[in-house]
Amino acid sequence: MIKRYLLTPGPTPVPPEVALKMAEPIIHHRTPEFSKIFSEVRGGLQKLFQTAGDVLVLASSGTGAMEASVVNLLSAGDRVIVVNGGKFGERWTKICQSYGVVVEELKVEWGEAVAVDRVRAALEQFPDAKALLVQASETSTTAVHPVEEIAALTRTRETLLIVDGITAVGVYDVPMDRSGVDVLVTGSQKALMLPPGLAFVALSERAWKRADKPHLPSFYFDLNRERKNQADNTTAYTPAVSLVFGLHAVLEMLEQEGYENVFRRHARLAAATRAAGAALGLKPLAPRAPSPAATGLYMPAGLDSGKLTKYLRDKVGVSFAGGQDHLKGKIVRIAHIGYFGDFDIVTAIAALEMALTKFGARVDFGSGVAAAERVLVEGLPSV
Amino acid sequence: MIKRYLLTPGPTPVPPEVALKMAEPIIHHRTPEFSKIFSEVRGGLQKLFQTAGDVLVLASSGTGAMEASVVNLLSAGDRVIVVNGGKFGERWTKICQSYGVVVEELKVEWGEAVAVDRVRAALEQFPDAKALLVQASETSTTAVHPVEEIAALTRTRETLLIVDGITAVGVYDVPMDRSGVDVLVTGSQKALMLPPGLAFVALSERAWKRADKPHLPSFYFDLNRERKNQADNTTAYTPAVSLVFGLHAVLEMLEQEGYENVFRRHARLAAATRAAGAALGLKPLAPRAPSPAATGLYMPAGLDSGKLTKYLRDKVGVSFAGGQDHLKGKIVRIAHIGYFGDFDIVTAIAALEMALTKFGARVDFGSGVAAAERVLVEGLPSV
Repeated sequence: MIKRYLLTPGPTPVPPEVALKMAEPIIHHRTPEFSKIFSEVRGGLQKLFQTAGDVLVLASSGTGAMEASVVNLLSAGDRVIVVNGGKFGERWTKICQSYGVVVEELKVEWGEAVAVDRVRAALEQFPDAKALLVQASETSTTAVHPVEEIAALTRTRETLLIVDGITAVGVYDVPMDRSGVDVLVTGSQKALMLPPGLAFVALSERAWKRADKPHLPSFYFDLNRERKNQADNTTAYTPAVSLVFGLHAVLEMLEQEGYENVFRRHARLAAATRAAGAALGLKPLAPRAPSPAATGLYMPAGLDSGKLTKYLRDKVGVSFAGGQDHLKGKIVRIAHIGYFGDFDIVTAIAALEMALTKFGARVDFGSGVAAAERVLVEGLPSV
Repeated sequence: MIKRYLLTPGPTPVPPEVALKMAEPIIHHRTPEFSKIFSEVRGGLQKLFQTAGDVLVLASSGTGAMEASVVNLLSAGDRVIVVNGGKFGERWTKICQSYGVVVEELKVEWGEAVAVDRVRAALEQFPDAKALLVQASETSTTAVHPVEEIAALTRTRETLLIVDGITAVGVYDVPMDRSGVDVLVTGSQKALMLPPGLAFVALSERAWKRADKPHLPSFYFDLNRERKNQADNTTAYTPAVSLVFGLHAVLEMLEQEGYENVFRRHARLAAATRAAGAALGLKPLAPRAPSPAATGLYMPAGLDSGKLTKYLRDKVGVSFAGGQDHLKGKIVRIAHIGYFGDFDIVTAIAALEMALTKFGARVDFGSGVAAAERVLVEGLPSV
């Protein structure tokens, strides 16, 4: 008998009360009942995104909303700057290139944040760049890029700032309107504690102006059509009704908790995980700009992290993410995004301690857990 | 946001696949569909109870099956011997006395097993005792009584052995037929990983002979009527249909795991919990005969365990059981029965370490978890 623990940075665990909400009888989407829920969801999403503008709901994965940002704002032959510091930076490049958009890449070492000076230099070198595309949190490297500082550079220029906030929105403070982000994207299976299947995208006023003429060919991801429909509390095409039910419940939960507390929750679990990693002598992948969504840790030299994560998943029941591309076999990524609690971190670290031992590493049992507990206990309510 | 962990010795957690099974559409119970499931359940219960006889399914809590044992086998004025070493031993006495059965109590200090010599002496002192009633595992004190050794004494006498196996059956080896237990009782919310609501009772051949004439007044708990009905794969009164669906799934899971592995699983988690308690310097409640179902630990002197368990439940999300009667405020009981895994023990111990600190006790963070890990890692599959 194996109990399963999903400790990956997406999909993430779904709270039981949300799962029950999604199990409610399906209703038709062209009804006042659905529109009422959808209207409340729209309001909640504005708070989540910290924007006065529309946050559009798409039935797609986060990549769909990334693509929607590109096809509604760019044209073939346009030049863009892409910050590529991991698999998802690379994804911006691939999407743009699929449509003939010319990409100037700022390659960033995996695990590092892009230097603001490099961004400034690129904006000066390519003043015709129609957009700068970046991740807020680069899930593949567990590093964050300095989006607010980048926004301070783009908001006075013609270059739009398009941000993949998939493991950032609802994890830590990304004040869209206040900082001047032009496009912000997220997905349902991260901080929103839902199954995958919904994506969200919000545009600034100047981005909507840029989107008002047809750009790249697309039917499904036509954001003007969606915006018009969603203003009437409906969607252009069939929405993922059950996921919208779940989203309704989640937004209510998050507001009840208060977004400041939500951000504090993620920061605390991240700090505990990093402390545990340090106590175990595991080198962090993103020491200078660690994401509050997940923590990447190098495994001891010679230990294949792919084998370790497979062992943990298949034989112990604990799922971590591994590394991709040149980090394959070298790291594990432990998530703390969404419906994670103190004892998920304790579980993750205890599982890691035991698995490392099984793979021949020298581990002082309990030392990682102790370091995590020392951080966690500080945030526990008083007696 | 608080994630909830139910780490009490009943109710216990329900596996998600079982919960989904119980959420299937309800069917009528007087149908071939229900009878087919019920017939398979009856076969599975015989393996669970290690008996060739009927195991009857009752829609009641475990106490209902305890009462059924009394009312079908005893008469007012009969003398019985009750081993009373905790709340559930006391319950045997109360049930018997409610019906005018004369109870000779063998009082046992809480946390101790009854001495076999005392049982022998009582059987010799009261050769007219119609039954000896005992717990296999006394949940309130986390101690086990030596049922097989007691059965060796009763099976050659006229005194029937009636055993409350509520936190024993499916937890460790209780070979009913082989050891000569006359009545064995259990409930759904323990090793069977189900919600409360079902109870089970099996009788030996000589117990059925004793039950063939009317005894104490009862309508609902008439085991002869149930036996007749259940032989036809139906029940005398409306069965708890969804729970029977769940039971069907659970019995299949347990058989697939193999009962030897099930017993080993419980023993391993119990050993890890005891090791953690020892490492934390917490005195065990049942050092000589610890139950594989739950571990009782004394809290440090002056620390109110009731306040600690309330704090953990309400503010941290972790539910332990406390102590009852004279142990109230003195102990916590950590369960490892049913759908428990390694990381439930890790969670329990980490929660205890942090809570003890919050209540002013001196705790070496991670020391209990380390001791648990040292036991658990031995049982993990090889790489």
